[in-house]
Amino acid sequence: MNLPVDAHRLRADIEANAAFGRVEYDDPAKHGRTNPTGSEANRAARDRLVERMEAAGLDVAVDAVGNVLGTWVPDSADPTAAPAVSGSHLDSVPEGGIFDGPLGTYAALEAVRALQEAEVEPSRPVGVVSFTEEEGGTFGDGLLGSAVATGVTDAEDALALENDAGETLGEALDRIGYRGDDAIDPADWAAFYELHVEQDTVLEAADADAGVVTTITGITHCEVRIEGEANHAGATAMGDRTDALAAASEFVLDVEAAANAVVDESSASAVGTVGSLSVSPNATNVVPGRVEAGVDVRDVEAESMETIVAAAREALVRLERERGVETAFERPFSVAPTPMSDRLRKAAHAAAADAGRTAIDLHSGAAHDAMRVARVTDASLLFAPSRDGISHNPREWTDWEDCAAATEVLAGAVARAAVDGE
Amino acid sequence: MNLPVDAHRLRADIEANAAFGRVEYDDPAKHGRTNPTGSEANRAARDRLVERMEAAGLDVAVDAVGNVLGTWVPDSADPTAAPAVSGSHLDSVPEGGIFDGPLGTYAALEAVRALQEAEVEPSRPVGVVSFTEEEGGTFGDGLLGSAVATGVTDAEDALALENDAGETLGEALDRIGYRGDDAIDPADWAAFYELHVEQDTVLEAADADAGVVTTITGITHCEVRIEGEANHAGATAMGDRTDALAAASEFVLDVEAAANAVVDESSASAVGTVGSLSVSPNATNVVPGRVEAGVDVRDVEAESMETIVAAAREALVRLERERGVETAFERPFSVAPTPMSDRLRKAAHAAAADAGRTAIDLHSGAAHDAMRVARVTDASLLFAPSRDGISHNPREWTDWEDCAAATEVLAGAVARAAVDGE
Repeated sequence: MNLPVDAHRLRADIEANAAFGRVEYDDPAKHGRTNPTGSEANRAARDRLVERMEAAGLDVAVDAVGNVLGTWVPDSADPTAAPAVSGSHLDSVPEGGIFDGPLGTYAALEAVRALQEAEVEPSRPVGVVSFTEEEGGTFGDGLLGSAVATGVTDAEDALALENDAGETLGEALDRIGYRGDDAIDPADWAAFYELHVEQDTVLEAADADAGVVTTITGITHCEVRIEGEANHAGATAMGDRTDALAAASEFVLDVEAAANAVVDESSASAVGTVGSLSVSPNATNVVPGRVEAGVDVRDVEAESMETIVAAAREALVRLERERGVETAFERPFSVAPTPMSDRLRKAAHAAAADAGRTAIDLHSGAAHDAMRVARVTDASLLFAPSRDGISHNPREWTDWEDCAAATEVLAGAVARAAVDGE
Repeated sequence: MNLPVDAHRLRADIEANAAFGRVEYDDPAKHGRTNPTGSEANRAARDRLVERMEAAGLDVAVDAVGNVLGTWVPDSADPTAAPAVSGSHLDSVPEGGIFDGPLGTYAALEAVRALQEAEVEPSRPVGVVSFTEEEGGTFGDGLLGSAVATGVTDAEDALALENDAGETLGEALDRIGYRGDDAIDPADWAAFYELHVEQDTVLEAADADAGVVTTITGITHCEVRIEGEANHAGATAMGDRTDALAAASEFVLDVEAAANAVVDESSASAVGTVGSLSVSPNATNVVPGRVEAGVDVRDVEAESMETIVAAAREALVRLERERGVETAFERPFSVAPTPMSDRLRKAAHAAAADAGRTAIDLHSGAAHDAMRVARVTDASLLFAPSRDGISHNPREWTDWEDCAAATEVLAGAVARAAVDGE
């Protein structure tokens, strides 16, 4: 199947979208945008997507939390058949890159246009979706729109979430005109593909055009508190201290060592990170009295995640005994590893072969909307190469020809799902 | 010499002073005050001190940075002779204790009143001083008034320092009526005694009435920056990381180990503290890219301080090599250890013996105005016991009888300096 992906049209879409919330830099290697959910930039990005969907003949639906679904119902299709859908998101972190989200959204639209221009005759409708608040940080923890659509999160709860200005998601969506009343239910979809930038260097190192994700790693977040005794740094002898930061430093190194041990012994994809750490009172001349730390543990194997978490808890027990600190441990967030659909992975590899593109299997250490959709239907996550793996950063970059190559693989996979239900 | 220190009068003074900026707590063990330089509470505390000085027949002088000196010129004295002075400060940290500063200030006044009531006949004037902005944090780094008086800091520079509200020290002193034009020069003093709460537990452990400080430790502050690479905590394999916080954790433990080694091998008073540490971007799901840390190193021996600082620098070199981080090291603040006057220490011990009070030698790990004054004349620092060593905290406490006992020692020492020049 020859699918004429138009690299220039795709680039024009991504560049036009990059103007919404654009951040200017002197450095020509930086291309940043700040496009939080509910902002004016977010409204403009959504308006343009809707306009481009309608220009391609798609019917546009908007649900209660602002997820946008454009559906093409070709003459060849049974309009009541379960659609083949692809897409991603348009929101960004502050000073995020221009590809994280928009590539997958506009590649999905480009795939539909390619099917249309190649006069492919799908047996089912073909959809393009853009989920709300994938990044999180503005309202809630991320993957919000797909969590509501797949029933993980209640729409009313999501709409009540507030941004830093105290505005609820519901109010923000009303303000920008994207609080809809259509139903968008991924459980009704025959297949879901999401193309995203890799945010790592596996594809770059392998010189591959596309990645086919086997499993999205599970994620656990742990919150740790270590209480020592704040004291005058000059007047308190070394032997009289209960230094919360010294104890926390052992904890950080213990988590790192536990993750490294799992990598060496059982699962190379395991990671353990102490990403946040706050010291109180945090004055140079005061022995630290309290530390709060946030731990992120991920792997494709639930068992290795539990090994790292157990090591973290054991470290705290040891520190209580050896350093006299008091500790607290909570695990507010935990998602199991999510395998992607074997059927769709196989189809993606076949589509890559058809297009003469190289595709390799890899896992995703980052969460994506495909993780939520995989709860309710067959889902597949495809990656395009990221230069140096840089992401959530204005230096994020994917060459335009790499965008087009990965979009060819996506279009082929979507065609297989839409025509033959493959 | 029988010096009738009036314990009730001293207590009344300290309690009256504690009302200025008082913080209320449900817990009866807490007695806090917030009395920053230039606040209305600070104005009220100063006004009351001036009134009490004048009630005791002292002439009050105020210099350009608001240091207050009350001088008693008895008939017996040569009014041109170098005065014997004691005192401390009235400002506090936020929610500080009621004794840190005010004890030494009002004990100095009580010493003068005791001399007057015992009809002692000093050969020289006797002074009571209260220095501005000892604590720091409101304007500059602390010991500010004594630094200006002793020529370490230029008055114009000090007056230009700004508080968080953007008001300069000069403007704040104008506002509260304490920007004076008298000269206060400790170089002209025959002797300076400062009584202060110990802020540690040496006196408590020894059941001693007073401490006679041998040396105020030197202090070095180092600012350290460790640069790694911020990256997605999920998408970045353990082996691909340059984690600034993991590197910083090794640094914290290396500083602690270096200080412990010095304590074990050469100088029991040495301390090394990483008191502050800030992580960037400080998100649970991001590998830390940058850490900034503040290190405090103190000892009575300059050599052991240098040993700890050298170990800190070596740790950074090792971390650059082993972890691939980049590091920066600055040492913005360094004060050598300050020995107290042998003459005044001897007189203080003699005064304690006269009063039937136990006094022991110890060092001070905290900086005090006496450190600045010792640059220009004979200075001595005396300590009263602190319950559990707690300080800069509303739980700071010194029993009233302990306040009086230490004040007896101070009064006897001041009398020796004032009468015989001892």
